[in-house]
Amino acid sequence: MKSTIFFKNRPAIIGTSTICGPKESQGNLGEYVETRLDDDTFGEETYEKTECKMLSHVIENSILNSNLSVEDIDCLISGDLLNQIISSSFSARKFDVPYLGIYNACSTMSEAFALSATLVDGGYMQNVISATGSHFSTAERQYRYPLELGSVRPPQSQWTVTGAGSAVISAKKGFYPRITCATIGKVTDFGITDANNMGAAMAPAAFRSLINHFEDTKREPNYYDLIVTGDLGALGSRILKHLTKERGVNIDKNHVDCGELIYNIDEKEFQGGSGAGCSAVVMNSYIYQKLIKKDLNKVLFIATGALLSTLSTQQGESIPAIAHAVAIENGV
Amino acid sequence: MKSTIFFKNRPAIIGTSTICGPKESQGNLGEYVETRLDDDTFGEETYEKTECKMLSHVIENSILNSNLSVEDIDCLISGDLLNQIISSSFSARKFDVPYLGIYNACSTMSEAFALSATLVDGGYMQNVISATGSHFSTAERQYRYPLELGSVRPPQSQWTVTGAGSAVISAKKGFYPRITCATIGKVTDFGITDANNMGAAMAPAAFRSLINHFEDTKREPNYYDLIVTGDLGALGSRILKHLTKERGVNIDKNHVDCGELIYNIDEKEFQGGSGAGCSAVVMNSYIYQKLIKKDLNKVLFIATGALLSTLSTQQGESIPAIAHAVAIENGV
Repeated sequence: MKSTIFFKNRPAIIGTSTICGPKESQGNLGEYVETRLDDDTFGEETYEKTECKMLSHVIENSILNSNLSVEDIDCLISGDLLNQIISSSFSARKFDVPYLGIYNACSTMSEAFALSATLVDGGYMQNVISATGSHFSTAERQYRYPLELGSVRPPQSQWTVTGAGSAVISAKKGFYPRITCATIGKVTDFGITDANNMGAAMAPAAFRSLINHFEDTKREPNYYDLIVTGDLGALGSRILKHLTKERGVNIDKNHVDCGELIYNIDEKEFQGGSGAGCSAVVMNSYIYQKLIKKDLNKVLFIATGALLSTLSTQQGESIPAIAHAVAIENGV
Repeated sequence: MKSTIFFKNRPAIIGTSTICGPKESQGNLGEYVETRLDDDTFGEETYEKTECKMLSHVIENSILNSNLSVEDIDCLISGDLLNQIISSSFSARKFDVPYLGIYNACSTMSEAFALSATLVDGGYMQNVISATGSHFSTAERQYRYPLELGSVRPPQSQWTVTGAGSAVISAKKGFYPRITCATIGKVTDFGITDANNMGAAMAPAAFRSLINHFEDTKREPNYYDLIVTGDLGALGSRILKHLTKERGVNIDKNHVDCGELIYNIDEKEFQGGSGAGCSAVVMNSYIYQKLIKKDLNKVLFIATGALLSTLSTQQGESIPAIAHAVAIENGV
């Protein structure tokens, strides 16, 4: 059994859109993000409504940036971190478009890419949207403590990104970065129980998908200009590099992590960014623009997700994780 | 823009498995369910662990019932009602199989069928599992009140099914019920705010998908031996019949609802069954067996989902809903 599916028609990413909060705007990649908020409420009464509005905003803009209208969109594939993925479902309510809700935590962006590419590559649809996002304040409230409590964050923790990203995957011809294959992740659990240490929980899942990807495709790490993990953060990235090196696979030269890139790490972000919005923002802004300019031509994008809930943690469970790898290439 | 995708290779449903709780065992369809529990804990310490165990149980049995082993399975597509779909993700942890988590509430079974059929039909995979489930006691605790509170249920309410269902969608040749097309639902919100009245919230979504399906396929209701909605319940089914009749479409003769079928309605089930497990159990036991015996040959299966969360209700939101329609046919 292989884990990788190949797309013979190489669906194109014809347009993207991103949005981020004030902290992310001041980060390393802020200048690449389309909409930079200077108010993390986006004018809404609750942070959940903000998260939903951010997602709707990038979905709409990714359609415009692709020179399409809503009528051209065959399906919206989206998920998010909130219980019952309400940001996605309430965003989908605003568009008269078929909707498939997905959930694989912070690996949602690459899951959406894989499914969108399948629907387009197989000739079932012409244009499919992949979208996700997250908000620091909704994630803190739901997964950890109310902000008002002022809890101290441990040094192994990461900072959930306030932001969203959307991309249109299309059958359109012409020069675009294209999705050539996708390695679907397997749930991997190395027994980590510290819900503040997502990087350690997710690194083994990224490792496994990476190895599966190289085995299935007969490619080596240096095939790619960049191997971009989702939100392992600094610690998780070190664990991944350690695991791969142990296996005789060296990704030192071309691996970056969206969580490590997004912040300047000068406040309390510790290991870096996390959240479904982290890789969604970095991939659909900085990485996509580098692909369009041909500064990068072959990228392996592996968003990683920790599949816990507050209840699974309360019931003493360890943290299963997953990572889907999607190859995005120019000139194919 | 059409909402319907057609599967030229007509993926087969080669095997299924179902499980249900004691109350469901005594219902109208109990005799068709493979595993009937006489203990709604299934020997577990928490109901969440029970729900997860039920799901793993049917996934495993559906593989056996298809005369396959785990190594033959290319992907598991699953979702459930728990926050962060932990039943699905923790079930997936037990199988060394690529996993795609999905969430569209109680329409998960038809979403999974649609995606599984796409992956198989396009030649990307050979055997894909579609699975989901729910548990009365986890749903009550999460969405409504702790059981210990003994809250009185209003007459418009439904009873979340304790049960799970799994099916293997395959490229295999031979006589099997086959998935011929799928109409992907659009999020529909008629402004219902009563979280106890899911039938009313979901009926307009079922109506919309039904109309889209008939328009896209040029079929009429009498094309099908049975049009099976997921869990509208008695009230929701009446609303659906009313809406379709207003539109000049008559489904009186061949419409049934899994929520109406599953219980005898002699206790406090009021409008009938609900939950992702409701349509998963009925479809993969009773309906599937009728298809195998050719008592039924053309079935349109429309699982319906209410996309609310407790938080969206607390923030004053109405209830968006969705319904995906999947055509399952013999002799194609």
